[in-house]
Amino acid sequence: MFSLTVRDHFMIAHSFNGDIFGPAQRLHGATYVVDVAFKRPELDRDDLIVDIGLASQTLSRVLGELNFNNLDEIPEFQGRNTTTEFMAKVIFERLAHAIRDGELGETGYGLTGLGVTLHESHIAWASYEGAL
Amino acid sequence: MFSLTVRDHFMIAHSFNGDIFGPAQRLHGATYVVDVAFKRPELDRDDLIVDIGLASQTLSRVLGELNFNNLDEIPEFQGRNTTTEFMAKVIFERLAHAIRDGELGETGYGLTGLGVTLHESHIAWASYEGAL
Amino acid sequence: MFSLTVRDHFMIAHSFNGDIFGPAQRLHGATYVVDVAFKRPELDRDDLIVDIGLASQTLSRVLGELNFNNLDEIPEFQGRNTTTEFMAKVIFERLAHAIRDGELGETGYGLTGLGVTLHESHIAWASYEGAL
Amino acid sequence: MFSLTVRDHFMIAHSFNGDIFGPAQRLHGATYVVDVAFKRPELDRDDLIVDIGLASQTLSRVLGELNFNNLDEIPEFQGRNTTTEFMAKVIFERLAHAIRDGELGETGYGLTGLGVTLHESHIAWASYEGAL
Amino acid sequence: MFSLTVRDHFMIAHSFNGDIFGPAQRLHGATYVVDVAFKRPELDRDDLIVDIGLASQTLSRVLGELNFNNLDEIPEFQGRNTTTEFMAKVIFERLAHAIRDGELGETGYGLTGLGVTLHESHIAWASYEGAL
Amino acid sequence: MFSLTVRDHFMIAHSFNGDIFGPAQRLHGATYVVDVAFKRPELDRDDLIVDIGLASQTLSRVLGELNFNNLDEIPEFQGRNTTTEFMAKVIFERLAHAIRDGELGETGYGLTGLGVTLHESHIAWASYEGAL
Repeated sequence: MFSLTVRDHFMIAHSFNGDIFGPAQRLHGATYVVDVAFKRPELDRDDLIVDIGLASQTLSRVLGELNFNNLDEIPEFQGRNTTTEFMAKVIFERLAHAIRDGELGETGYGLTGLGVTLHESHIAWASYEGAL
Repeated sequence: MFSLTVRDHFMIAHSFNGDIFGPAQRLHGATYVVDVAFKRPELDRDDLIVDIGLASQTLSRVLGELNFNNLDEIPEFQGRNTTTEFMAKVIFERLAHAIRDGELGETGYGLTGLGVTLHESHIAWASYEGAL
Repeated sequence: MFSLTVRDHFMIAHSFNGDIFGPAQRLHGATYVVDVAFKRPELDRDDLIVDIGLASQTLSRVLGELNFNNLDEIPEFQGRNTTTEFMAKVIFERLAHAIRDGELGETGYGLTGLGVTLHESHIAWASYEGAL
Repeated sequence: MFSLTVRDHFMIAHSFNGDIFGPAQRLHGATYVVDVAFKRPELDRDDLIVDIGLASQTLSRVLGELNFNNLDEIPEFQGRNTTTEFMAKVIFERLAHAIRDGELGETGYGLTGLGVTLHESHIAWASYEGAL
Repeated sequence: MFSLTVRDHFMIAHSFNGDIFGPAQRLHGATYVVDVAFKRPELDRDDLIVDIGLASQTLSRVLGELNFNNLDEIPEFQGRNTTTEFMAKVIFERLAHAIRDGELGETGYGLTGLGVTLHESHIAWASYEGAL
Repeated sequence: MFSLTVRDHFMIAHSFNGDIFGPAQRLHGATYVVDVAFKRPELDRDDLIVDIGLASQTLSRVLGELNFNNLDEIPEFQGRNTTTEFMAKVIFERLAHAIRDGELGETGYGLTGLGVTLHESHIAWASYEGAL
């Protein structure tokens, strides 16, 4: 199995609901450094997993929708806690949708899996991975 | 599949038995930077994989039992080589035990897998992963 | 010249004022991974720059005053932009004050300089350094 | 499952064929920082995954065949694009061959899988993994 | 003293002249991960060292002139060895020129120093720093 | 000013004397990842700071004298605490001696400064730097 990973980041404000979150119930924020692994069993005719230029642009577009925002104000996230692991799946789903829509071009249709990791600090990170 | 990883470290002395170890048969030591990945297929009702506070505390407690010790003097490890890969499994088993004992609270019971990585330097690390 | 560096982090929300900040004028947030370098020309009688336990505790206390907060609501920062470089100096000054107050013990009085670096992402960080 | 990873690097020139590569069609180059994960389900009698000395030497030998070369001039790669993902598989296959030939000694025969990751920059890396 | 650092990278081919370079006399290549530190003693009226957007764009433009090229073919470098340290100074000088030309805007004129680090691998990097 | 940094590591056992060290008074150990910065104001005729091959070999030789040892048993360190900062100066002095002895060749005589950093974990490191 092959995988190609590209890294980008976004910066958001948010707060959490529930006693389990302690002081993180207050409005605070995070930088998320995001690694996305694109997976497929065989390379394409150009010896590529995916067009890295399109992959990076698409990741940048998806993160740009979240970057410099207060996640508490985004309707889609109402009633949820925008934890690192929750956001990993949000980004997975948005990227999976973009791939199905052809945003990664022809090579994107050959991808069979995706892994998304969000680093919230030097000592904690969360991932979501699944098939496409 | 979701995973949440937390990082901590411990510092120990030890020596190895067997010609294959060369100069590492002498008493020496290591810093192990430890990454533990907690895994589950779905998030809990708080949108969490696990309570990161409890996860970090438990890891700290488990590493604290080894930290600032000479592993050659710990009865449990007699007759074994406390290699990086061996210690990865030791920590896996101690954490798995703690999870079964409820040390990670209710969310801990939803975990289905654990991966433990010990970095011994900038150019070598070892892992053990398994189901819970 | 000797220096000892310890790393910790804090997570905050904030917004910026001024056209130069573009979309960062919106409420957003950041994880700051903080490296503090404690400097002195000679080691003390224990062959130390500073008691690393006290240094880490003091850094943790100082960052704890900011962690999980919206910096826009802290009176001290009114009328200022809490940029990465600005916050580096804030932390420098709070640590310098703590050292003068004896929070790092006797060894703290031997320190002659301090450098504070805040990493806001994998591609940007800012520092403030000065004499004590 | 256990894994042991060792890191090394090599530096090459190459160019790519195909419009999809844009300016990378010109002769350029890369440093590849290489992580190789050696995998097996149980440790050997020395509590090892593999002899780390032999593993590092073998990786160094395999990379030494490519290091400081222009990949465009290597007959084996004619008609292919020596992308990061392509080179990950090349190194996988050369290491797999070395293991079968006994270059990692007795412990090498116990290995069941191999993962090869090539980092081309701080924001992009590619992997190939497979069974032995 | 304040400093703000931004990171980017470029990928080139080159060869060296002189027995001291051994196998690096052959045509090979490198990824250079570049860190540029912008320095000034006081923040500007926006609490900034420099406009990070302009700083990143200017660095990207300067590296873009070198990226995906064979340095052996660039007339300016004839008769020189394009070592990591040599290239650090080349980038320093191009950035210093851009700052004097106003490419970093008004805030650029307040800068007093610049440090350029090129990482050629995980185990080697070189820097050039100087006043503006 | 130019600097070239190379990275290597060594693994030792040791213990500390003095109440200030708490549990680190017990025999334990550390991996030290070592960065050595070689400095000079101008490049030599080959556009080099120093012969990186000789620099790496010399560092490896110096660390090899300490690697896989119990520092408590080395006569030179009797009555001292082999803290990270203390060891940074030990390595500085051994390298400075090697440079004066010509171990780095002709280019070594042009060096004017040296900085030695020992990383003891992902959250703590110490440095010693001085003129040659």
